[in-house]
Order: sequence, then C-alpha cells, then structure tokens
Amino acid sequence: MKPGETVTALIRANEARDVDAVIALLTDDVAYENVPIGVLTGHEEVRAMLGPFLGGAERVEWEVLEQVEQGEVVMNERVDRFWLPGNITIELRVAGLFKVRDGQVALWRDYFDLAVFTEQMNG
Amino acid sequence: MKPGETVTALIRANEARDVDAVIALLTDDVAYENVPIGVLTGHEEVRAMLGPFLGGAERVEWEVLEQVEQGEVVMNERVDRFWLPGNITIELRVAGLFKVRDGQVALWRDYFDLAVFTEQMNG
Repeated sequence: MKPGETVTALIRANEARDVDAVIALLTDDVAYENVPIGVLTGHEEVRAMLGPFLGGAERVEWEVLEQVEQGEVVMNERVDRFWLPGNITIELRVAGLFKVRDGQVALWRDYFDLAVFTEQMNG
Repeated sequence: MKPGETVTALIRANEARDVDAVIALLTDDVAYENVPIGVLTGHEEVRAMLGPFLGGAERVEWEVLEQVEQGEVVMNERVDRFWLPGNITIELRVAGLFKVRDGQVALWRDYFDLAVFTEQMNG
C-alpha cells in the first residue's frame, strides 16, 4: 500500500467503528495527537480513548475533502461527523497530518478547533 | 513557480510583514479562511485584516514543519509565531491548505485552535 492508501484505510476503519482495524494500521509506538487536547502514545492509549468513543457512536463518517501525499507524509482536509446517542451530532472540520512507515501510521496529528467540538458534545 | 514554491513565497511575505507581497501572491477572488473565525474574500478584505496585524507585529516567523503538494493542492504543518507590542508572544500550531492557480493562491485555509490564539492575545 502507498502511504495515502494506508491513511484511507485508517479513515475507513474509523468510519466502520472498528477499533481493532484502526490499531492494526498504527505502529506499536504510534503518536496520535489531537493537537488541542494532547498526545496518545502506543496501541493501549489509543485503544483506551478511541474504543469507547467509536464503540459508543451510532454512526461515523469522515468526509475527505482533499488528500495529498509526498514521500512518507500524507495530509488531508476532512469533515469528521459523529452521530452519538442522545441525538448528539458532531461535525468537525479537521486537517490531518500522517507519517507512514511500512504500511502503518507512526504519527497522526489532527488540527481542529476544540471549542467547536466541546460545544457540540454538550449540545 | 510550482504550487509549493508559491506557498513558500506567501509564507516568506508574511514573515517579512509585507502585505503588498502577500496580496500579489493571492488571486483577485481569493478565499482566505481562518477556519475557526471566518472567510475573507478578495484583496481588500485580506488587506484590511492582515495589513494592521502584520504591520503591528514586531516580528513574524512561520516555521514550516512539513509541506506536501500534489497537483494544485499544497498542505503544510506550521508553527506560526508573532511578537506583538506589549511583550505579547503568540505561538500557534497550524495546518494549512492552499489551492494554487497560475502562481497565485486562490484558496487558503488555516486550521488551528482559536482558544490558544485568544488566550495568548489576552496575555
């Protein structure tokens, strides 16, 4: 897989709310940073955060507006949408950066405005 | 110039606090969006916002961590630093998307966390 295809597979695994598939696409020492929140390091930390969040969602859709890659670096512009129980809908505009190593993502940083996320979470 | 070179020139013009050079690198109908804030359209609106901000800064430095391009689309990951009067220093982590047309930027979107910016602006 080319780096961009690895990232596309990662997006699809999130949309499928399949945390095992997400983890399989990350290196053991992955650094996953939601930039305004903080860094998760390694499979266990990512699973502990993403598992409940994806598992608790009724539907997840990450629309990729643009995706460009050069060497090991992939960047994309997305609209991430989450449908959560209690009629909560989250729509978040995100720019992501990924570094891919041998078909797995070693670095993943998502840039977004945290207040837009928390305001929607709190209805 | 390749699209990535146009974007690099745009970064440099901002660092030089040269609003005329910035404007010259944007199409007449440019859409410049600070995603958590809003869209500026066309030279006049961009100049009205950027002119005073860049002109008022003592120093501007935009560190490009990564930049990738494919076709007309350029994306970069940056740390934008501003030194403003009154000992205000702003350091903002940004992901930018640019679409380049004939050597000028027609679309420019910067993704960042607004609270990080406003907290630093307010000291």
